[in-house]
Amino acid sequence: MLINTRIPFRYIFRKVKNDLLSVLCFSVVFHILKLFFVDYLPIIPFQLPAILGTSIALILAFNLNQSYDRWWEARKVWGAIVNDSRSFVMQLKGFTRREGDAGTILKRMAHRQIAWCYCLGQSLRGQDPIAAEQTRHLSEEDIDFIKTQNNKPFALLMLHTEDLRNLYQSEAVNPFQQVQIDSTITRLCDSMGKAERINSTVFPVTYRLFVHFFIYLFLVVLSLALVETIGLFEIPILTFIASTFFLLEKTGKHMQDPFRNKPTDTAVTAIARTIEINIKQVLQEEEVPKPLTPEKFYLM
Amino acid sequence: MLINTRIPFRYIFRKVKNDLLSVLCFSVVFHILKLFFVDYLPIIPFQLPAILGTSIALILAFNLNQSYDRWWEARKVWGAIVNDSRSFVMQLKGFTRREGDAGTILKRMAHRQIAWCYCLGQSLRGQDPIAAEQTRHLSEEDIDFIKTQNNKPFALLMLHTEDLRNLYQSEAVNPFQQVQIDSTITRLCDSMGKAERINSTVFPVTYRLFVHFFIYLFLVVLSLALVETIGLFEIPILTFIASTFFLLEKTGKHMQDPFRNKPTDTAVTAIARTIEINIKQVLQEEEVPKPLTPEKFYLM
Amino acid sequence: MLINTRIPFRYIFRKVKNDLLSVLCFSVVFHILKLFFVDYLPIIPFQLPAILGTSIALILAFNLNQSYDRWWEARKVWGAIVNDSRSFVMQLKGFTRREGDAGTILKRMAHRQIAWCYCLGQSLRGQDPIAAEQTRHLSEEDIDFIKTQNNKPFALLMLHTEDLRNLYQSEAVNPFQQVQIDSTITRLCDSMGKAERINSTVFPVTYRLFVHFFIYLFLVVLSLALVETIGLFEIPILTFIASTFFLLEKTGKHMQDPFRNKPTDTAVTAIARTIEINIKQVLQEEEVPKPLTPEKFYLM
Amino acid sequence: MLINTRIPFRYIFRKVKNDLLSVLCFSVVFHILKLFFVDYLPIIPFQLPAILGTSIALILAFNLNQSYDRWWEARKVWGAIVNDSRSFVMQLKGFTRREGDAGTILKRMAHRQIAWCYCLGQSLRGQDPIAAEQTRHLSEEDIDFIKTQNNKPFALLMLHTEDLRNLYQSEAVNPFQQVQIDSTITRLCDSMGKAERINSTVFPVTYRLFVHFFIYLFLVVLSLALVETIGLFEIPILTFIASTFFLLEKTGKHMQDPFRNKPTDTAVTAIARTIEINIKQVLQEEEVPKPLTPEKFYLM
Amino acid sequence: MLINTRIPFRYIFRKVKNDLLSVLCFSVVFHILKLFFVDYLPIIPFQLPAILGTSIALILAFNLNQSYDRWWEARKVWGAIVNDSRSFVMQLKGFTRREGDAGTILKRMAHRQIAWCYCLGQSLRGQDPIAAEQTRHLSEEDIDFIKTQNNKPFALLMLHTEDLRNLYQSEAVNPFQQVQIDSTITRLCDSMGKAERINSTVFPVTYRLFVHFFIYLFLVVLSLALVETIGLFEIPILTFIASTFFLLEKTGKHMQDPFRNKPTDTAVTAIARTIEINIKQVLQEEEVPKPLTPEKFYLM
Repeated sequence: MLINTRIPFRYIFRKVKNDLLSVLCFSVVFHILKLFFVDYLPIIPFQLPAILGTSIALILAFNLNQSYDRWWEARKVWGAIVNDSRSFVMQLKGFTRREGDAGTILKRMAHRQIAWCYCLGQSLRGQDPIAAEQTRHLSEEDIDFIKTQNNKPFALLMLHTEDLRNLYQSEAVNPFQQVQIDSTITRLCDSMGKAERINSTVFPVTYRLFVHFFIYLFLVVLSLALVETIGLFEIPILTFIASTFFLLEKTGKHMQDPFRNKPTDTAVTAIARTIEINIKQVLQEEEVPKPLTPEKFYLM
Repeated sequence: MLINTRIPFRYIFRKVKNDLLSVLCFSVVFHILKLFFVDYLPIIPFQLPAILGTSIALILAFNLNQSYDRWWEARKVWGAIVNDSRSFVMQLKGFTRREGDAGTILKRMAHRQIAWCYCLGQSLRGQDPIAAEQTRHLSEEDIDFIKTQNNKPFALLMLHTEDLRNLYQSEAVNPFQQVQIDSTITRLCDSMGKAERINSTVFPVTYRLFVHFFIYLFLVVLSLALVETIGLFEIPILTFIASTFFLLEKTGKHMQDPFRNKPTDTAVTAIARTIEINIKQVLQEEEVPKPLTPEKFYLM
Repeated sequence: MLINTRIPFRYIFRKVKNDLLSVLCFSVVFHILKLFFVDYLPIIPFQLPAILGTSIALILAFNLNQSYDRWWEARKVWGAIVNDSRSFVMQLKGFTRREGDAGTILKRMAHRQIAWCYCLGQSLRGQDPIAAEQTRHLSEEDIDFIKTQNNKPFALLMLHTEDLRNLYQSEAVNPFQQVQIDSTITRLCDSMGKAERINSTVFPVTYRLFVHFFIYLFLVVLSLALVETIGLFEIPILTFIASTFFLLEKTGKHMQDPFRNKPTDTAVTAIARTIEINIKQVLQEEEVPKPLTPEKFYLM
Repeated sequence: MLINTRIPFRYIFRKVKNDLLSVLCFSVVFHILKLFFVDYLPIIPFQLPAILGTSIALILAFNLNQSYDRWWEARKVWGAIVNDSRSFVMQLKGFTRREGDAGTILKRMAHRQIAWCYCLGQSLRGQDPIAAEQTRHLSEEDIDFIKTQNNKPFALLMLHTEDLRNLYQSEAVNPFQQVQIDSTITRLCDSMGKAERINSTVFPVTYRLFVHFFIYLFLVVLSLALVETIGLFEIPILTFIASTFFLLEKTGKHMQDPFRNKPTDTAVTAIARTIEINIKQVLQEEEVPKPLTPEKFYLM
Repeated sequence: MLINTRIPFRYIFRKVKNDLLSVLCFSVVFHILKLFFVDYLPIIPFQLPAILGTSIALILAFNLNQSYDRWWEARKVWGAIVNDSRSFVMQLKGFTRREGDAGTILKRMAHRQIAWCYCLGQSLRGQDPIAAEQTRHLSEEDIDFIKTQNNKPFALLMLHTEDLRNLYQSEAVNPFQQVQIDSTITRLCDSMGKAERINSTVFPVTYRLFVHFFIYLFLVVLSLALVETIGLFEIPILTFIASTFFLLEKTGKHMQDPFRNKPTDTAVTAIARTIEINIKQVLQEEEVPKPLTPEKFYLM
């Protein structure tokens, strides 16, 4: 997540460098063409780029809106993960009898929940889901088990269900409480699936493509029209206009894919850290980590 | 689902071939008319196509948005199917007592759930719902039963309910657990119904029709206006503009119907495969299939 | 529901006949005025209709979007009715003990559910809710009871509750199961209320009115502007443009009211038929009706 | 709720009278200024009002959409109240044992529910919540109790909870049934809170203000531009355009506040009456009132 | 929350002062440039600012809409807090047996719920969450406990769970009732998490940035175009147009962040006060505070 600070100009510029270069190219080419072949070039009436400009602005605005919705949905899913992780541990603590090994199971489940959050975040970003930080919170057997499984975060939920079963069979929770905690696990499973859905569903490719093509069509026609009327000034003005359109297009593109290990990502590691802090405080542990701080201009 | 790769030009071109041809036709005809009957043709003021262009761009953008929502809803429904299939098997495993034939019933239900996903996908696409792949996971009696039923996926859910009843009567699950699992089956039944709803509800036909008609009206008026001002150049420019509008219209049309056995479909077979993998890992089976890989530029 | 076939031209034309006629009228009148009183008519600058055209296109597009949402909500409500009807019967079958007269009650409730769907559809369309088709599925006492009640579909749900009470008192269902089935009845009651809400809430009348007035304002100003520039051609061009706007307005109007016994209605009878088929197959009855087929270009 | 009939012209005109008057004023002033100070007035290029017109139309259309959503949300809340009131009474009837004074309590609760609906409606509209009509349905003690409470409708729900507690303690309902009915009361409490939220949350004031200011800015600039080109005709044309914009703005404003005791309100009294009829029919009472009929052109 | 009264002009003006100043600057600069270097300045065709104006209006309108949705979501979250706080206390009162120390626990929980609302509001606004007003309602031990915790409102919910556990163990509530109350606490935990999500998720920074940049680009181009056509009048007209765009942009910006201790905030303190009043009336306490009154033109 980009934070509310001064974003480095280089970061922004790098995103649209290539597109701006090609715009620069054709606007220069048209300028030269005009000098030598003035009679063969059409005199584009200015209303033509106006029609195209309004149309592409519209399509782009809707596209941005859809991308924004996708980004916000991803954030909501991780918000639900925060809420359900907290409720999960609070329910475990409020329901289980404090006898026998129930306390041990409870602690194991709570720590596993912390690991699950980190693990899901890494896995969505295509990184090793059992990296250093979170395995600290898992028992040896748990690690051995999830190594045999493809979908690591799902495997952790399976272990949760197994432990809940044990709690029920040792009568540490009653049937109602089991079902209530199971509902919370189901919601966690839902959130995981939703994040995977957003991650694995490509934003309609042709839609993205045609919007890009449409912007170029608009800029070419605009360039042809401007070259007639304002001559050399056309080059900087066109570049500015092009950069605005391309920047907005790129903003949309980044919001469409919120788990790509980029600065514009949903801050899943920071969220997992928050959950870790909350859960450890419920368990009244002494070593509670600090919240994650932003790296330069973004928070991962 | 189209994947994030280079889409073949031929695939895209084929979609708008016919419409582009007719645009080419009338732009040539207007050009010839102008040469011979210049005095009888009206001099269309350029603001007229501007009004129409803005209007159709607006209507088209909203139409695209509604189509996008429909496509995303379809994807969400299948996301819910993934989540509930996983929860279903996890609940079965976490709840049922491991005594008597409960283990056999559990395995049968889990395999039936895999079959259900494939079966629903095929059925939505209008293909034989009991094709090779999924029947592997069904028992003989199950197959015999669903052959007598019209709605095959619904019939599989009925068998789930019957098996759940058996589990309850043999006291392998307690009353709360029965009701909790029943809620999961109800959600699966909901998702099935939602997918059927999207599939069987035609996008308002007249709406679609008038949008198409409106694009033509705009292009004809634009052609008449351009023929006056830029002559022969009108033909390529109009063709480019027309192609953008028609491509966006077609993109919308494809998103409206996400279960038509086309490359733009929701990737139901790939999703069913993911569910198969997940469930088989929960059952700790040895033979787990690989995820489906894209065929050229799309994933079914 | 209009189906994906060739819609008869007459059907479409009839919708906008009157509006087109009045447009034709004033465009001819302006033409004549111009011939005789040319000096007194204002020379409308073409940007004026451009502003108005863009504005009304915008308002219309939003209006269409709101109408579409309303139409889709109505369809979703009926989708939920399909799902809950299926779940209802499946739950009844999966829960009730097969002893005593539980079987009879179950069958009666399932048939009543079929009748409820038809009855609700008829009632929403303002037709006699106890017409021939559905009463076949009701017992004599049921019919006598609902005749005394104003809201027939609601009365059928009351009878459901009464029968569920009987099942519980004869211990055919346990307390959890009673509450679970009651939740399904509550959802059916919700869907019924939602459909009634859409049906009884008039789309904001002034909004509808001002949009209509705005279209006329635009067309009058456009006509005045065109009469100056393109003369006689103004008449066909204006008619075409007007027809597009009016057709889109009418499309919105029809989507706003999806239960008016018109071809653009939500296909409630066809949906009720689907439910009938599904429920009868759950009951494994022999006589299962065929799905409803479209009448010419629409499905009721 | 305005009904689908001929809305009196006076009602509509009164809404925009003041704004139209001020538009008339400045358009006349500009006209006079032009006659005397023609050299000092700027010649506004017509594209300037075009830009402003498109922009304000956009902002207005979005504003209307947000207002519409708010209006529809209010209607949905009252739809949920209808559904939950019906379910509430149906559950009470289906669950409670018919022994002891359970029947009396049931009847009291059902009547209180009727009173609650009227009471909430009155209270939202800022009228005396214990007016004549609904107190008929309340017992003496109930009235005495709610008189001591600030939030009358909430106080009635408290009494519901108390009675439900009595039913449970006298074993007229079992624990599951108590919880199920309690869930319904919770949903009623939610709907009440939602209606209060819509009522007490002012639509962002500055947003509303700037939209109003923007319309004026547009009209002033348009007036300056028109005065140059079409002279005296400017006055009627500007008035027409202004009235369209102001009427749409007012439509939005009315939809933003659906509980203000105005003709555009959500028809809460009529809805409460519907609930009264439904509940009385469940109780099989003999005296069932008639549905509320519209007063002239609206339904309260 | 700004209330529906006359907003002081100074408050509004201060928001856009800086931006207006820079607009004034460059419009004056262009004017001077034109006087001296008239031959070197391009003659911007007026359609160019028209294209840009329409585009930025569009992007801005969508931006406003997204901001509005965020603001409304924040308000909805606090609406849910009102509803669930009321239901929570009503359930406690309706469920717990009136024996032993259950009454004391109930009262403590109800008072803690009041404190929680104030505490969450303060905490969201970055103020000391244990300020004077609310600690009045907490016991000594509670205050000592939450002082050791990072997330104060979450700590209060933990104490709720602990007390609920005590109620269950002393058999003051039965298992179903415990689970039902636990569901309400879970919903409160959800609402808290949702408010934190809105508060901690920065609105996409680059999006906000490019919109701001786009407005400037539009104003510069418009200024260049106006300077040609209307001379000195350009300065006031541009300032007016600029102020409209900047005011709408700022309105959006304020709605994006509804918990910043500003007049445009969601009125969390006033809402907490309402909850306090409601809960104290449920407990039938004698000292009930008055609702919060607006400070000048806003309500906190």
